[in-house]
Amino acid sequence: MSGNSFGKLFVITSFGESHGAAIGGIVDGCPPGLELNAADLQGDLDRRKPGQSRHTTQRRESDTVEILSGVFAGRTTGAPIGLLIRNEDQRSKDYSEIADRYRPGHADYTYEQKYGVRDYRGGGRSSARETAVRVAAGAIAKKYLAEQCGITVRGYLSQLGAIHPQAFDWDEVARNPFFWPCAATVADLETFMDGLRKAGNSIGAAVTVVASGMPTGLGEPIFDRLDADIAHALMSINAVKGVEIGAGFRCIEQRGTEHRDEMTPDGFLSNHAGGILGGISSGQDVIARLALKPTSSIRLPGRTINNQGAATEVVTLGRHDPCVGIRATPIAEAMLALVLMDHLLRQRAQNADVTPPIAAIPPSI
Amino acid sequence: MSGNSFGKLFVITSFGESHGAAIGGIVDGCPPGLELNAADLQGDLDRRKPGQSRHTTQRRESDTVEILSGVFAGRTTGAPIGLLIRNEDQRSKDYSEIADRYRPGHADYTYEQKYGVRDYRGGGRSSARETAVRVAAGAIAKKYLAEQCGITVRGYLSQLGAIHPQAFDWDEVARNPFFWPCAATVADLETFMDGLRKAGNSIGAAVTVVASGMPTGLGEPIFDRLDADIAHALMSINAVKGVEIGAGFRCIEQRGTEHRDEMTPDGFLSNHAGGILGGISSGQDVIARLALKPTSSIRLPGRTINNQGAATEVVTLGRHDPCVGIRATPIAEAMLALVLMDHLLRQRAQNADVTPPIAAIPPSI
Amino acid sequence: MSGNSFGKLFVITSFGESHGAAIGGIVDGCPPGLELNAADLQGDLDRRKPGQSRHTTQRRESDTVEILSGVFAGRTTGAPIGLLIRNEDQRSKDYSEIADRYRPGHADYTYEQKYGVRDYRGGGRSSARETAVRVAAGAIAKKYLAEQCGITVRGYLSQLGAIHPQAFDWDEVARNPFFWPCAATVADLETFMDGLRKAGNSIGAAVTVVASGMPTGLGEPIFDRLDADIAHALMSINAVKGVEIGAGFRCIEQRGTEHRDEMTPDGFLSNHAGGILGGISSGQDVIARLALKPTSSIRLPGRTINNQGAATEVVTLGRHDPCVGIRATPIAEAMLALVLMDHLLRQRAQNADVTPPIAAIPPSI
Amino acid sequence: MSGNSFGKLFVITSFGESHGAAIGGIVDGCPPGLELNAADLQGDLDRRKPGQSRHTTQRRESDTVEILSGVFAGRTTGAPIGLLIRNEDQRSKDYSEIADRYRPGHADYTYEQKYGVRDYRGGGRSSARETAVRVAAGAIAKKYLAEQCGITVRGYLSQLGAIHPQAFDWDEVARNPFFWPCAATVADLETFMDGLRKAGNSIGAAVTVVASGMPTGLGEPIFDRLDADIAHALMSINAVKGVEIGAGFRCIEQRGTEHRDEMTPDGFLSNHAGGILGGISSGQDVIARLALKPTSSIRLPGRTINNQGAATEVVTLGRHDPCVGIRATPIAEAMLALVLMDHLLRQRAQNADVTPPIAAIPPSI
Repeated sequence: MSGNSFGKLFVITSFGESHGAAIGGIVDGCPPGLELNAADLQGDLDRRKPGQSRHTTQRRESDTVEILSGVFAGRTTGAPIGLLIRNEDQRSKDYSEIADRYRPGHADYTYEQKYGVRDYRGGGRSSARETAVRVAAGAIAKKYLAEQCGITVRGYLSQLGAIHPQAFDWDEVARNPFFWPCAATVADLETFMDGLRKAGNSIGAAVTVVASGMPTGLGEPIFDRLDADIAHALMSINAVKGVEIGAGFRCIEQRGTEHRDEMTPDGFLSNHAGGILGGISSGQDVIARLALKPTSSIRLPGRTINNQGAATEVVTLGRHDPCVGIRATPIAEAMLALVLMDHLLRQRAQNADVTPPIAAIPPSI
Repeated sequence: MSGNSFGKLFVITSFGESHGAAIGGIVDGCPPGLELNAADLQGDLDRRKPGQSRHTTQRRESDTVEILSGVFAGRTTGAPIGLLIRNEDQRSKDYSEIADRYRPGHADYTYEQKYGVRDYRGGGRSSARETAVRVAAGAIAKKYLAEQCGITVRGYLSQLGAIHPQAFDWDEVARNPFFWPCAATVADLETFMDGLRKAGNSIGAAVTVVASGMPTGLGEPIFDRLDADIAHALMSINAVKGVEIGAGFRCIEQRGTEHRDEMTPDGFLSNHAGGILGGISSGQDVIARLALKPTSSIRLPGRTINNQGAATEVVTLGRHDPCVGIRATPIAEAMLALVLMDHLLRQRAQNADVTPPIAAIPPSI
Repeated sequence: MSGNSFGKLFVITSFGESHGAAIGGIVDGCPPGLELNAADLQGDLDRRKPGQSRHTTQRRESDTVEILSGVFAGRTTGAPIGLLIRNEDQRSKDYSEIADRYRPGHADYTYEQKYGVRDYRGGGRSSARETAVRVAAGAIAKKYLAEQCGITVRGYLSQLGAIHPQAFDWDEVARNPFFWPCAATVADLETFMDGLRKAGNSIGAAVTVVASGMPTGLGEPIFDRLDADIAHALMSINAVKGVEIGAGFRCIEQRGTEHRDEMTPDGFLSNHAGGILGGISSGQDVIARLALKPTSSIRLPGRTINNQGAATEVVTLGRHDPCVGIRATPIAEAMLALVLMDHLLRQRAQNADVTPPIAAIPPSI
Repeated sequence: MSGNSFGKLFVITSFGESHGAAIGGIVDGCPPGLELNAADLQGDLDRRKPGQSRHTTQRRESDTVEILSGVFAGRTTGAPIGLLIRNEDQRSKDYSEIADRYRPGHADYTYEQKYGVRDYRGGGRSSARETAVRVAAGAIAKKYLAEQCGITVRGYLSQLGAIHPQAFDWDEVARNPFFWPCAATVADLETFMDGLRKAGNSIGAAVTVVASGMPTGLGEPIFDRLDADIAHALMSINAVKGVEIGAGFRCIEQRGTEHRDEMTPDGFLSNHAGGILGGISSGQDVIARLALKPTSSIRLPGRTINNQGAATEVVTLGRHDPCVGIRATPIAEAMLALVLMDHLLRQRAQNADVTPPIAAIPPSI
């Protein structure tokens, strides 16, 4: 496949540019019988949608998704599900001045080197606008996982610049525009972001995604381990520079006695593994964390070259997120859900007859 | 594909268990005309081989690879390359006592839950022994990349527990058994490892891999970005819990003005991106870092359950690496080389006619 | 992938049902720089379109295709090309009476057995309406092959029932509604089809597709031989029951001295191979022939069962082609073009450096 | 994938040349728990093996297969199964005289044009020797299909030159060296073949393969229809020039009333469809027929060119089958079994929860 598809059995293929006619995609491999309508996808699309607070881009898109196929009488049929989101608020003129020069830290230069041409309007294909399609597809996966398997996929912003949450509450995540799990520090975020916006700068962030209610057995060694596919999926999100599972980079300084998650008949005693052992889910929560860079689309001028190779400067106008990490939470959830859904189907294929030698132990802690 | 293949055009498929008759694999998609013989692979196999110092497992394997096909008159023919490494030093009796119980932090439990059966001898398919095949395949990729494209893939141990290198010298990496780039601190490593071995414990580590001499244009957005495929490849290595590209997790606290790599006609002014922008190589060095957990195969007893679900203890005998990160350096190099080789072929396929609008700028810093 | 994608590097993924909101697809892997607009696709869509003569279904669809992405300033960008064709003339009520019974020889029964549900309106996903998407995608491939490589893909109806052409003229193919290469026998076809239509029956047919201007070297042994992929592609067309290459089934009674195509410095002396040797194109015309069954959607009653398993009869109303082979010509051309395009890219990937040992000999008969 | 793999979930990847060290492959995706040992594969390997009668090549190979991995305690583990067959009777000197010239009708010319090099010893990778690996892999699929699903895959020679069987008896197929279903005409075959061998010529043939005990629901529309994958699989066998399903090319002259297989509560009334409707298995026998060309490796001189492009003649020495169709029967069975196995796993993946609306009707003719 040529780069715009993800998954082996539950496959999302996406198309579309930031300022083209539409973005959309095809979900192939959804089992038949799932109740589905556009409203099921719209919830997550709205969570990702720009302009939900003053802290994200002010581009206005309704991001209304249309389901074009694959559903009959309110249920999926096993046929591919066509998804379409028309673009609406395209101020392409904002981009005319970057037509001949490359924003540093952006994909402008590499796209033009690779393809000899680029759709510079809003970043074209490299724009994070494309992730709306992933969110729509991921919503289908989330619904199936929740209804058929009792798996819940959730995420939250776990760090913004140097700010860490001081407490953790899943319910709080839905209450503020940052997907932030700690009510006490929301004001800190607002103050910081207001200052950043005035300065015309941007900031990095971290997002954590968690799948609960996991079955054992998802993941296909050697190369299609569950963690490897999660790393692939999350690193494919725009601006992501790092992915870790469970203890992640903290494991470097751990000893074996500390890292290994001991087991008892009542469950695991810890979860440094992030719910994955040998590339296969253990039944514990799958926990992944991703690092998102500060966007390069900022108002502060930077040195660059133009398409003649000459030195110049660039200032990114247009409307951009000062912290792309904020809106990344539903995207990361979607990507995790897509991976789990794909592996669920793969597990069914090969291991239909397996009776585990012991009942799975509880995933406690 | 069912999990034991990696790559789309340059494809490695591997087989084999730790204590079976042999491990091996097939490299499909190697361009014809490359000079190749078994000695070209043996160098990296020897770097990965156990028993090279007292700091790694004392299992003795010659790891002699046989090329079974795909080479005629000293050159590759375009046909698939069959690789075979016979297993030699199998002390399977060491493992009889883990036949009925699960080592915590190991794949024992998840394999048995998934498949209903596991080859417990030495970890079976989940053993890092399998990585020898990757190293052999990666050596083919490295040779092609070096000879045909001037791309060099190298790696080093960048952290061991809390010990960091104090200086950096590529030449030093080959001089010590740790792949460590700093002569001054080799003694610290030895002391630490000797203590660890006596204690029967294990430790985590970090490895950094670097590709130099990169062309622009490798990587296929959206899902097959170069960084996403690298994350997939590196996370698929046993014991890896995190992967980062360029600035990686440090980008969380960076501002856009700091992170973006400004460009001049003489090249980039920094490389926080790790050589990849928008999922496509920029011509700068590709830099990735991976975190490896402390192995769970240690002599210190841990709580676990047996295959009846009852509480018990386990002590891992057999011969194991107290720091699996050490021998991971050639494995990580191999995986990076496999990704680059695959993307090189993909880039040729789709962009054969592209003349970049400007000559690529130098990749300086 | 889950069944609705075709190709490895030039990939078409399709969606849509006969009576849903729309059909469409995504072409992923088109090289950048190709001049492209919707009119380039419309020509072949119009050739396939129903209602072009009294001999095909009277369903009226404008089959207007919209290109949603992947084209900028009149040229492809290397990004995926989204294609959309809205459905228009959906008389779904025609199908209410087959909602609870299975048309013999149709996919009704198997879809319902497989998925537990089917969109019975016009055959849903199993309708040949879906092939419009293939024709649109194939037109992109045809254009690239013609403009960049000098490869021409053409087809014609080579048999209808027991009627064979008496002469052969490529120009004639475009002059009659049958894609028939023989002016002298067009009247025979008309007479036969008029009688068939009155009788309410249907008839089988054969289509032949030819690629001229072929380079040597396309095709990837062992499993992805050019002929194997062509067989796959053509057999995937609705109603196709057989595919042959070159001499095809006639080779059964041939001796080696007759079948082998001898070679001279001026070219081959025959083309029983159909332009493919060992799965790789020889430079001669690639010639494939496909057999299409008589459609099962006919007015004459047939015995069947209903969805309670009881015996009943079915009569297919709705508007149907009495010979689906007629409109299959542009579809078969499209599928052949898709295969060639995919293999062209694959050939570039792996053999970029190859200089053939001798210049290719001319492909003369 | 690069051409040497087949299947999506049950995947065979093969390697090896006719006169290299070994041929072999990897079967990835075999469900765990299947009893398996080398003897299970040897039966079919012996059926395909050369030198079983005077009517096939006199090359002597024991074709002993070794299972290198994926089996533990007599059962498959879910890990990839490595297969190895050492080459033994390599008289490579027989081939020195075709090193510089191309056998007409053979892959010599196209391999050299594609790759710039070819292993001319015995045809190298293009030799039918490679099919031994497919037979070994197919035997695993056959065993699983038979034991777990009650599906039987069988084949027979259905035509040799102009000779057709006069009667049909499955039991007879195993009693003669031709896989011929008609005792009365075996002598005709022997006489014909003796004459052909003396003349130094070769002849085409047809093989029919049948899967009985089929479940409904195998096959993934649109592109991965069961018939499309079967066509792909069978056309990938050396020397095959045509594939048909059920009525095949005979459908061209059929009317809809004749071709459609009417249904009753007691089953289908005919099987022109060959057990596949809309690309999905109907529960009837799957029936496919393939045409095999007369081999080009004959003693009678033919005009050709050498690798300087000059006119010359070629005579093929070495030891060859005068009718490659004879030994193709177990190969075609293997390919059909591989397709069915793959689709069985795919069906399980996506449709695990489906309860068909009616119980499948019996498959009676």
